[in-house]
Amino acid sequence: MSDRVIPDSVTQGCPAQGRPTSGRIICAGLGPGDPELMSVRADRLIRSACHVAYFRKAGRAGQARRIVEGMLAPGVIEHPMEYPVTTELPVDSPAYRDALAGFYDSWAARLTDLARTQDVVVLCEGDPFFYGSFMHLHTRLQGHVALEVVPGMTGMTGCWNVTGIPITWGDDVLTVLTGTMPEAELIRHMQATDALVVMKTGRNLPRVRSALALTGRLEEAWLIERGTMPGQRVIRLAEAHDDDCPYFAIVLVHGHGRRPERAQGDEP
Amino acid sequence: MSDRVIPDSVTQGCPAQGRPTSGRIICAGLGPGDPELMSVRADRLIRSACHVAYFRKAGRAGQARRIVEGMLAPGVIEHPMEYPVTTELPVDSPAYRDALAGFYDSWAARLTDLARTQDVVVLCEGDPFFYGSFMHLHTRLQGHVALEVVPGMTGMTGCWNVTGIPITWGDDVLTVLTGTMPEAELIRHMQATDALVVMKTGRNLPRVRSALALTGRLEEAWLIERGTMPGQRVIRLAEAHDDDCPYFAIVLVHGHGRRPERAQGDEP
Repeated sequence: MSDRVIPDSVTQGCPAQGRPTSGRIICAGLGPGDPELMSVRADRLIRSACHVAYFRKAGRAGQARRIVEGMLAPGVIEHPMEYPVTTELPVDSPAYRDALAGFYDSWAARLTDLARTQDVVVLCEGDPFFYGSFMHLHTRLQGHVALEVVPGMTGMTGCWNVTGIPITWGDDVLTVLTGTMPEAELIRHMQATDALVVMKTGRNLPRVRSALALTGRLEEAWLIERGTMPGQRVIRLAEAHDDDCPYFAIVLVHGHGRRPERAQGDEP
Repeated sequence: MSDRVIPDSVTQGCPAQGRPTSGRIICAGLGPGDPELMSVRADRLIRSACHVAYFRKAGRAGQARRIVEGMLAPGVIEHPMEYPVTTELPVDSPAYRDALAGFYDSWAARLTDLARTQDVVVLCEGDPFFYGSFMHLHTRLQGHVALEVVPGMTGMTGCWNVTGIPITWGDDVLTVLTGTMPEAELIRHMQATDALVVMKTGRNLPRVRSALALTGRLEEAWLIERGTMPGQRVIRLAEAHDDDCPYFAIVLVHGHGRRPERAQGDEP
């Protein structure tokens, strides 16, 4: 995963003494939102970073930056990577895709340039390799710069934990969908699975709710907003209003366990 | 999730000064195996624990115990919860189920008794609520004792990270299956998904491989053994031998991204 390894100790303290003559781009998975659920490794790298970069929408604080509030070293240099404003462009248009591709190209070049002389920590909510925005940089950086990815707990793991109920037991099947799919596809997948996670709900919530109702699963569905974070809300989806769902929310249905009482490691 | 909260500071040090007059059972998710991928919270709780309990097979060191090697406080009291030997019983027999149920009942009672006067940390590989053995204790403990679950990074998250390739992009569907399923069911789910994780491979590997071949996905499948741990092996499944797969291995197929270039937070 890592093209080269420089011991963490070299980059401790900020501004660092004995700065490396060439650095890495380190993408640190932040986990679901509670800083206590960050990995020991991500925690240490973020606290000792001299340069941090993170995505955010123009004019917003940014979720990733909010998670590390109070953790950054004095003197850290921040690089907010602000998405271009594209509200006037249809998301499936070539112009929209060009604007985003240009944005990722430009930041890949800037981060690569920074990493010539020092480490840069890129903050990424959840796990960088699970529906993460970092992958658009990753494809542009790989092979051109020393690159390291620190896994993070996925947002969905944080969310099923705050319900206090296991998501999968025994031989349950778990399916992860995005709320952006057409209703017929949502229904087909919902019918085929035991446990379910729906990412990217937001404005898609009415369609997700309808698909769950049509497959007889609405009553057992949960809506988790800001899971593990301040302002967390955990409710039954049936009790939620369609117009009351931020993008940063997950819908889930727990499995019931096909063969619950088995010793770990046993096989049929 | 927690019935009552006692500050961590009360239980720091072992044997503790100022021990609480009543304790909790804390299940700490250990993550995929690398101790650096444990959460900050699990790391702290494990290092300060006076009592730790963990599942293992009779005569084995136990994977959970191995992960925390070197982390436990001097004077810690260990409670290995050894699965009953049931090799003579068919796994679907009532006698097998009774033996396991009795085992979980007995440990639920012993842990509850311990927690009358002190905290007990139960070690659980991966995330406790994702195919975890802890849930058999959880159902028996909930409502009877102060209980807390600390989420862990799932084993599959560690495994897809060590391949260095994103598991899901854009609007990919991810399906998690167990290798214990009949081949026809494996095939049906494999056909319907973009990205795939197969848990509980081991002796089921030939069936999993056959189902992947029949759905045209064998060439893009990976086998990860002991992901993020010493002795880690990451190979193409097509190159693996059927008789060369421990239970502690995961098969995965990466998604390709249905709409890769989108700004995070955008919706159609």
